[in-house]
Amino acid sequence: MDQQWLDRQTEEVGMALAKQGIRVVVPVNQRKSKRHDSKTDFKGFPIASVIDHTLLKPHASQEQIKQLCSEALDYEFASVCVNPGRVSLAAEILQGSPVAVCTVIGFPLGATTTLSKVFETRDAVANGASEIDMVLNIGALKEGDYAAVYSDIKAVREGSQGRILKVILETGLLSKEEIVRGSILVKMAGADFVKTSTGFGHGGASVEDVSIMREVVGPDFGVKASGGVRDYETALAMIQAGASRIGTSSGIAIVQGLKGESDY
Amino acid sequence: MDQQWLDRQTEEVGMALAKQGIRVVVPVNQRKSKRHDSKTDFKGFPIASVIDHTLLKPHASQEQIKQLCSEALDYEFASVCVNPGRVSLAAEILQGSPVAVCTVIGFPLGATTTLSKVFETRDAVANGASEIDMVLNIGALKEGDYAAVYSDIKAVREGSQGRILKVILETGLLSKEEIVRGSILVKMAGADFVKTSTGFGHGGASVEDVSIMREVVGPDFGVKASGGVRDYETALAMIQAGASRIGTSSGIAIVQGLKGESDY
Repeated sequence: MDQQWLDRQTEEVGMALAKQGIRVVVPVNQRKSKRHDSKTDFKGFPIASVIDHTLLKPHASQEQIKQLCSEALDYEFASVCVNPGRVSLAAEILQGSPVAVCTVIGFPLGATTTLSKVFETRDAVANGASEIDMVLNIGALKEGDYAAVYSDIKAVREGSQGRILKVILETGLLSKEEIVRGSILVKMAGADFVKTSTGFGHGGASVEDVSIMREVVGPDFGVKASGGVRDYETALAMIQAGASRIGTSSGIAIVQGLKGESDY
Repeated sequence: MDQQWLDRQTEEVGMALAKQGIRVVVPVNQRKSKRHDSKTDFKGFPIASVIDHTLLKPHASQEQIKQLCSEALDYEFASVCVNPGRVSLAAEILQGSPVAVCTVIGFPLGATTTLSKVFETRDAVANGASEIDMVLNIGALKEGDYAAVYSDIKAVREGSQGRILKVILETGLLSKEEIVRGSILVKMAGADFVKTSTGFGHGGASVEDVSIMREVVGPDFGVKASGGVRDYETALAMIQAGASRIGTSSGIAIVQGLKGESDY
């Protein structure tokens, strides 16, 4: 099958769905960056297509969110990742484009109630979010209350109404065994991605943790590396270790082979 | 009026209300510590009675929350301050006692939607919270969208159904003018306290900021100093500057005249 033809088919189907308010993520191996030169991954695909272009600073302005969206369109990033209060604005700007609107739920502590996480998710979907990055119940995971962890994710899974669901473990607070068990729970509860970190003060992604997560969830599941990924070499190492998505605020630096400054 | 008699009246009314699920904060100048020697403030009242005994670590265990509650009863702190997912547990332990259950809303970024903050608040009240510490919309404050800041607080004020409402400015991210305007908005929207900081990574309370806040809100309004208050001298300085409540995880160290380690 001709790749260019396939790309166009995918793009057209995606645009048609977007017009109906349905956003889908185009699989990585069917996306090619056109407008900008982008560093590629080790298989030759553009790094830009796996980057969630992220701005979660609590004091980010409307202007900064607009710029983030404009950059995401220019560089053809997978999504913009913004706080729930900025979803409406981002969704308005990105409507009809292939760039998804990602937001964060129970963020960054994961310590709110399941009921509140579900409400926050429904509210985000209503405002136009097509990807949901929730933080799991870290305290429950650490004390072995797996039913609480599972039902928390499961409830958000239902509340997210078919949108992409990523679950943040906050690996920097977990033992290897907790990372394995957390990843198992994320897969069991029917999410789409397991994700390493919030980027808010508890350490970031490591190659070792990403490898473990990939091994646990198998090849047909998403792994998002986030927290401290600020240059091309680190991003590439994460992808080689098994990451299928990169969360970073240094997306432009990464695709240009430079080094970014901030973590979120 | 005999102070001891007044104390007993206050205590009995408080206990009766608590039995009906209504928790009230006993005014500072009517509380005396009995069980433990506690350092006093510059007017001779026990410091313990103005401390919100705080544990907001995302990975805090049930056991640690139980211990926090037990310490709050022992030392007669004003409240325990815990994440929303731990409110039920704390409320169960502290039922019928004078120690309030405080929780945090839209925490620590303040960047969720108003709708989600209101839901989270109602959920917390239903679970037994009697004090609500919300983070205001920092981005909106900084870009001068005062209607958004005001209506966000006002909506949570209504959702909190008469419980004590404290509003966190995150002073470390604000200019002096933004602190003044934020404090005015907090008072206008009908909250009970203006509070300095989340303690999560953006700086803590300063004597100067607390003085400004006290000056803006006047004498009949609450000011809570939080973030980085870890010893008796700092706590006393905050109270002298105008703080009527101290948020800290070093409460025991403070009342004993020692220095605590962690910020939350």
